[in-house]
Amino acid sequence: MDISHIEHIGIAVPSLEEAIPFYEKMLGFKCFAIEEVEDQKVRTAFFKVGQTKLELLEGTAPESAICKFIAANGGRGGIQHIAFAVEDGVANALAEVEEKGCRLIDKAPRRGAEGLDIAFLHPKSTCGTLIELCEDPKKK
Amino acid sequence: MDISHIEHIGIAVPSLEEAIPFYEKMLGFKCFAIEEVEDQKVRTAFFKVGQTKLELLEGTAPESAICKFIAANGGRGGIQHIAFAVEDGVANALAEVEEKGCRLIDKAPRRGAEGLDIAFLHPKSTCGTLIELCEDPKKK
Repeated sequence: MDISHIEHIGIAVPSLEEAIPFYEKMLGFKCFAIEEVEDQKVRTAFFKVGQTKLELLEGTAPESAICKFIAANGGRGGIQHIAFAVEDGVANALAEVEEKGCRLIDKAPRRGAEGLDIAFLHPKSTCGTLIELCEDPKKK
Repeated sequence: MDISHIEHIGIAVPSLEEAIPFYEKMLGFKCFAIEEVEDQKVRTAFFKVGQTKLELLEGTAPESAICKFIAANGGRGGIQHIAFAVEDGVANALAEVEEKGCRLIDKAPRRGAEGLDIAFLHPKSTCGTLIELCEDPKKK
């Protein structure tokens, strides 16, 4: 598998309206997009820091993974996942790690925020961390 | 504050001996250093991914922040903190965010892994995420 960089860091927040001003006014970043991803029941806000994006995630329904993460974290936000940019196709990367014994959440790539091909590995196989593999199909 | 990039991502793991092979064999990264930071009661393993490092953290005593994080997380690992590289001095950055009302864990920079000047902001002021500011004093 050829991973070039960290594409983004997914940060769960109870409220985008509270979190965006912290990242803008306290840390000096600039929010460049807000997007709702309906099938994941989240609203996202993006910032660029060097070659990596911060993806703030607010759940839009109690059953969303983000709301469950925050509930399990005592109502507080926190870093929910890390997404690595693969260079040779998400489907190829999934096949490679599955062959090596990694459990997958997504057996095939699906469409995520910003139109990326994305797939998650299962934390049971990653020492607990939720890891996403992603690739921009427009870059192929 | 001038933040150039994400210096590293701190990932708590129950065991470096189990986690390092996952990051090397499954994801293809190369561990380039293992270091013990006695005053933080952690052992760390470093990997480089693009311009950012992954810092795997294993606690060496039950009272370490890493062991407490894992205990609060049901015994599982996960992403514990994100560290931003500042360009104009950690002390200056701390003064700036404190002036804007941010609560600090470290009132002054201290020495962290790899000889960096580091300081943590308090999650009460950051929407829950543990945020570190750091700078390599050798680059000044």
